[in-house]
Amino acid sequence: MKLLVYYFLIILTLNSCNKKNNHFAIVVHGGAGTILKDNMTNEMEKAYKQKLEEALNVGYSILKQNGKSVDAVEATIKILEDSELFNAGKGSVLSNNEEVEMDASIMTGDNLNAGAVSGIKKIKNPITLARKVMEESEHVFLSGSGAEDFAVSKGFKLIDNSNFITNNRLNSLKNIKKRESNTDNKFGTVGCVAIDKNGNITSGTSTGGMTNKKWNRIGDVPIIGAGTYANNQTCGISSTGWGEYFIRNVVAYDISAQIEYNKKSIKNAAKNTLKKVKELGGSGGVIGIDKNLNIIMDFNTEGMYRGYKKSNGDTAIEIYK
Amino acid sequence: MKLLVYYFLIILTLNSCNKKNNHFAIVVHGGAGTILKDNMTNEMEKAYKQKLEEALNVGYSILKQNGKSVDAVEATIKILEDSELFNAGKGSVLSNNEEVEMDASIMTGDNLNAGAVSGIKKIKNPITLARKVMEESEHVFLSGSGAEDFAVSKGFKLIDNSNFITNNRLNSLKNIKKRESNTDNKFGTVGCVAIDKNGNITSGTSTGGMTNKKWNRIGDVPIIGAGTYANNQTCGISSTGWGEYFIRNVVAYDISAQIEYNKKSIKNAAKNTLKKVKELGGSGGVIGIDKNLNIIMDFNTEGMYRGYKKSNGDTAIEIYK
Repeated sequence: MKLLVYYFLIILTLNSCNKKNNHFAIVVHGGAGTILKDNMTNEMEKAYKQKLEEALNVGYSILKQNGKSVDAVEATIKILEDSELFNAGKGSVLSNNEEVEMDASIMTGDNLNAGAVSGIKKIKNPITLARKVMEESEHVFLSGSGAEDFAVSKGFKLIDNSNFITNNRLNSLKNIKKRESNTDNKFGTVGCVAIDKNGNITSGTSTGGMTNKKWNRIGDVPIIGAGTYANNQTCGISSTGWGEYFIRNVVAYDISAQIEYNKKSIKNAAKNTLKKVKELGGSGGVIGIDKNLNIIMDFNTEGMYRGYKKSNGDTAIEIYK
Repeated sequence: MKLLVYYFLIILTLNSCNKKNNHFAIVVHGGAGTILKDNMTNEMEKAYKQKLEEALNVGYSILKQNGKSVDAVEATIKILEDSELFNAGKGSVLSNNEEVEMDASIMTGDNLNAGAVSGIKKIKNPITLARKVMEESEHVFLSGSGAEDFAVSKGFKLIDNSNFITNNRLNSLKNIKKRESNTDNKFGTVGCVAIDKNGNITSGTSTGGMTNKKWNRIGDVPIIGAGTYANNQTCGISSTGWGEYFIRNVVAYDISAQIEYNKKSIKNAAKNTLKKVKELGGSGGVIGIDKNLNIIMDFNTEGMYRGYKKSNGDTAIEIYK
């Protein structure tokens, strides 16, 4: 009888360990594209790395204090949205009519809940609105002024679109319009994936889309399955790249599906998916964490702003290949 | 030497048979939901079946005359969009502010090309616009008035939104607003999948979305991977159901991924995917054709307007379970 009690105690302990293993991890990206060391000053490089580190640390400390991955992902992405360095929030590129039109999405892997917004012009942090859609509406995907009406109904403050417009992005738009083409105007996005001490995975992505975009173009970022996907049983993924190719390849879910149906590692699954993107003519990158805390930061462009931090001490912040 | 020549001739013949096997098939749906025989008159039942048959026949004859699956799918869906019976085009349900806001998407399985539009208010046939986005823009997904600006640039005529509004849908909206709820207001969509004599698969889906929708809600229909997916190597799928659950489960691509990565039959893959949808609390249905011309019309609601026609003579048009 005593033995049986011991046995059950051991089983209980093992079970609770499994649920709460005290390990956690976070990974971020600030966009992929033609990022060449030759075009970068030491100062700029430092600024990018510092901001990535700041964002990572905010999310990391939430996870460390037993916080939820959804809180860590939102807080981390907000730091990147509030920076002028990245193509999201304050640093968003401009559309053809000199406006900012932002997209964002978020997904939580325990319940496969998701929220997404597109064509946002007046909300400071689109990732926060995407989370609100996920948690406080019966919908997954709201767009344009309708999404902003929803935001107002939830107490969000609308700010004028001019608040997002930076000189840097205005110059980029003018240059692109002059040249009528820019191979790199489709890139740059921010994203974050985190796994918390309870094993819950959250993924989020936010972007200003592509410079000089017309016709209310929607890229992969607000598309659950393409730009963002999370499932505690497989992995969480956030994409960045030439959105059209990422939609056609259902990139984020394709990685998860290979883990689920083909027993692939997250590393090999991502490699295979990016190969498919390239075969169609597209490029970009992905970050991800699987349920065993394996991290990927893979891309087929010249560079990707990226970094991660794990509870075991592993950390890195990188830009080039 | 003579034997060698015969050998090559046989190989050549086999190869050309493989590419052009003269078999083809088409399947359509007109939405899934609480379709009960008790609520249906014989007259209505006949009207639905006749329209499904008319649409099927239009696509079938295109395929028979060596036409492409993309032409068959577009032509078939246009018939359903032009009918008041289905929730797409002319028969679209009304949004909260008594407007019609339509979504559509199309994908071709030979090149994984895709086009999608959402929030369309002034285009008679959204499926035709989705095809135009696929074939004549560098984008996959355009939305709202921007998508209509693109349409105008391609010679589409804008028509007033009032042209879409039927008394039937106006009454439904009023009833739903009175009751403040309707479990069935999330359903009803049209879709078509076809495989042509060259083995090219095309899928398309078109909808008016959900009755009384607010905030420019986007459902699964324009989401490549959720509402629509096509890949000559696996299958083509068109979904209909509670869009939010179909997005979260990446329904159309999940079926294709199980065929690709798990060697599942299209039948078992669809069954498994719809089970996942149900486990989350959602419902709906899918139609599909795999590369071997196996057809599915599966759903977990009371009914789904549906039908198919194959070059071998098999055909069916059904409504209930």
